[in-house]
Amino acid sequence: MLEMIELEQAQELILALTGRTSPEEVALVQSRGRVLAETVYSVLDVPPFDRSPLDGYAVRGEDTLTGLPAALRLVGEIPAGSSFAATVGPGTAVRILTGSPIPAGANAVIRQEDTQEENGVVQIFRPVRPGADISRRGEDLRQGEELFTPGRVLTPAEIGILASQGIRRIKVFSRPRVALASTGDELKDVGQPLAPGQIYNSNFYTLAAMIEAWGGQTLPLGLVQDRVSDLAEVMREGLASADLVVTTGGASVGTYDVTARAMERAGVEVKFWRAAFKPGTPVICGYKGDKLVLGLSGNPAAAMISAALLLGPGVRKMAGFQGFHPKRVLATSKDEFAKSSGTRRFIRAKVVREESGWSASFPSSQQPGILKSMLGTNALVDLAAGSTLKAGQACNVFLLEEWI
Amino acid sequence: MLEMIELEQAQELILALTGRTSPEEVALVQSRGRVLAETVYSVLDVPPFDRSPLDGYAVRGEDTLTGLPAALRLVGEIPAGSSFAATVGPGTAVRILTGSPIPAGANAVIRQEDTQEENGVVQIFRPVRPGADISRRGEDLRQGEELFTPGRVLTPAEIGILASQGIRRIKVFSRPRVALASTGDELKDVGQPLAPGQIYNSNFYTLAAMIEAWGGQTLPLGLVQDRVSDLAEVMREGLASADLVVTTGGASVGTYDVTARAMERAGVEVKFWRAAFKPGTPVICGYKGDKLVLGLSGNPAAAMISAALLLGPGVRKMAGFQGFHPKRVLATSKDEFAKSSGTRRFIRAKVVREESGWSASFPSSQQPGILKSMLGTNALVDLAAGSTLKAGQACNVFLLEEWI
Repeated sequence: MLEMIELEQAQELILALTGRTSPEEVALVQSRGRVLAETVYSVLDVPPFDRSPLDGYAVRGEDTLTGLPAALRLVGEIPAGSSFAATVGPGTAVRILTGSPIPAGANAVIRQEDTQEENGVVQIFRPVRPGADISRRGEDLRQGEELFTPGRVLTPAEIGILASQGIRRIKVFSRPRVALASTGDELKDVGQPLAPGQIYNSNFYTLAAMIEAWGGQTLPLGLVQDRVSDLAEVMREGLASADLVVTTGGASVGTYDVTARAMERAGVEVKFWRAAFKPGTPVICGYKGDKLVLGLSGNPAAAMISAALLLGPGVRKMAGFQGFHPKRVLATSKDEFAKSSGTRRFIRAKVVREESGWSASFPSSQQPGILKSMLGTNALVDLAAGSTLKAGQACNVFLLEEWI
Repeated sequence: MLEMIELEQAQELILALTGRTSPEEVALVQSRGRVLAETVYSVLDVPPFDRSPLDGYAVRGEDTLTGLPAALRLVGEIPAGSSFAATVGPGTAVRILTGSPIPAGANAVIRQEDTQEENGVVQIFRPVRPGADISRRGEDLRQGEELFTPGRVLTPAEIGILASQGIRRIKVFSRPRVALASTGDELKDVGQPLAPGQIYNSNFYTLAAMIEAWGGQTLPLGLVQDRVSDLAEVMREGLASADLVVTTGGASVGTYDVTARAMERAGVEVKFWRAAFKPGTPVICGYKGDKLVLGLSGNPAAAMISAALLLGPGVRKMAGFQGFHPKRVLATSKDEFAKSSGTRRFIRAKVVREESGWSASFPSSQQPGILKSMLGTNALVDLAAGSTLKAGQACNVFLLEEWI
């Protein structure tokens, strides 16, 4: 077991111990935000035939180039979804709507606004070159071309392209199932009355929302007493039903023994305990079979921050995403942080992008229990052990926009 | 009825004709991304009592300031969730865990790492000032303070704060129900075989995904033939079941009459027809009772762009969000757009934020039917009528990150 390890080492270990979930098939209409788990090739040309992109008349362009207004004889009409058997000969036009196939013989479409139809004759007021205003077969997608590869996130445009291929169901990585237990004898669930010495469990709710944002789903394991037998039982339950087990609380100096013994009893090997950053130092990471068990700090803000830094990368990797870590940028601090510490510290901050670059400001309350300070937090300032920060000074920042 | 109106006028009209949905109560655990519809006040102090933020010993700070290591007599233990009846007197200590209430008489907590306990005596190796390392009652939230007002988007931090108050259910604006029909006789739904002259309906899938991203939900009305009776029937169905009705196709010059007559038959008053921008000019907007009917272009890319510019603001307003419009920034174009047009044009683009500011690049295919060009599109360059764009030139850009 490793003790007091660096963030980067902990992240590396967690990523090494997690793999992508197995693919599942979902309906295209329910695939927004999911991550593609297969390579998709185009099975047909889009559009599948030369078609009109507007309402007007299919003509031979050469008939419109001289002697305007030209008078063309109307020889038919093609509603969208049908076709025209005859050929458009010299001096004739066929009425056409957006999406109608271009009839044989025609090589251009003139839009309705530039024409006038009366008694079977179409007056053409503008020239159209041969080839103009036709949506060519395959101009959007060519049959056989590679459209998407695994890891592609499905946004509306990808979904539309899959629909244009007639695809109704698609393989995506399953949402990682994260079993989530909250330890702490003082915890009550929301909606219950509080007894003296008790507080409401907020960690379950913040973490479940974060896990959802990372593309995972939460299986609630409820509240657990800080007892070896209870904890071991809950870990076994989580390992049996989920891809990853997370507990909050139970990783601090005073509770480590209980958690470590529970892990041992559940057959979980402890990989590391405690990480060299604040808040969130109390963290315990175990492993059984191919499943990770991660115990995070029970302090609300510390739980969120260590979840963003350690659990997030794991869940996003499992969900099939290609970027695992929060993005790092250089920012200018607007506030000062005068209290140096022997441990690297992540200051919860709000960054904005200004003309001159990123700037970071932060609330004065940075205690691990102050959840209110997480409101509006979209970044973490990375303050090295022994350092302080002056207003105006440059600092390293993790952007959390997609993470919290 | 207005014709060929400016984007801004169309947006204003649409916002004037839409209101917030009625609130509904949801479980806190399912509230991520929803918009709060009530003002929430803190009903209790958080934490509700002075508590320990770490594992260690509750002491009288004065007993640790001189003569280190101090030896204090261990007089009890407070597991989290329980309380301690006796008082901590001079020269004594009480074993305490993270979250335990601070016992009477104690005024500081010393962390376990700075102590050693043996035979009922706790050796203290570091001084702690009175008041140190105590999480004070109400330091996170004070009973009676206003926490959130309507319009607040619920992210993990808000959800955690609501949980810390014991709140199990919360009032949010209902997801606007958008009934969505696709008109076009050439359309087939995915999973069905194509006949000659037919194409797959992609608009339903792109728009449903966009509506979901804006906080709405889609009620599918299926494929509709371009016939007055069919269209009117579908509009009635949509008006009866949804908060807003959207059709794609049927708003172009050649199909306007059918749609307008269908609207009339369904009791819908036409407010405007056609908007002065490309792609997406064919758009028809009607109104009945308190419900909007919006007909968008059937061309796939045009449908997405006009949806982002016109439907998005309406749905986001209905969903309770406070920002309705895509954000506007100044960018430097990396590409050129040489084809000037008599109509204002929105060029689908990809913008990135560089050291020197935003830069925009765009695919060469900008036809309204080319859906592929929407892949990676995260912005629209706003090109005025009659203008062209040179590489290196400044341009106005709408950011679509949250919109497409």
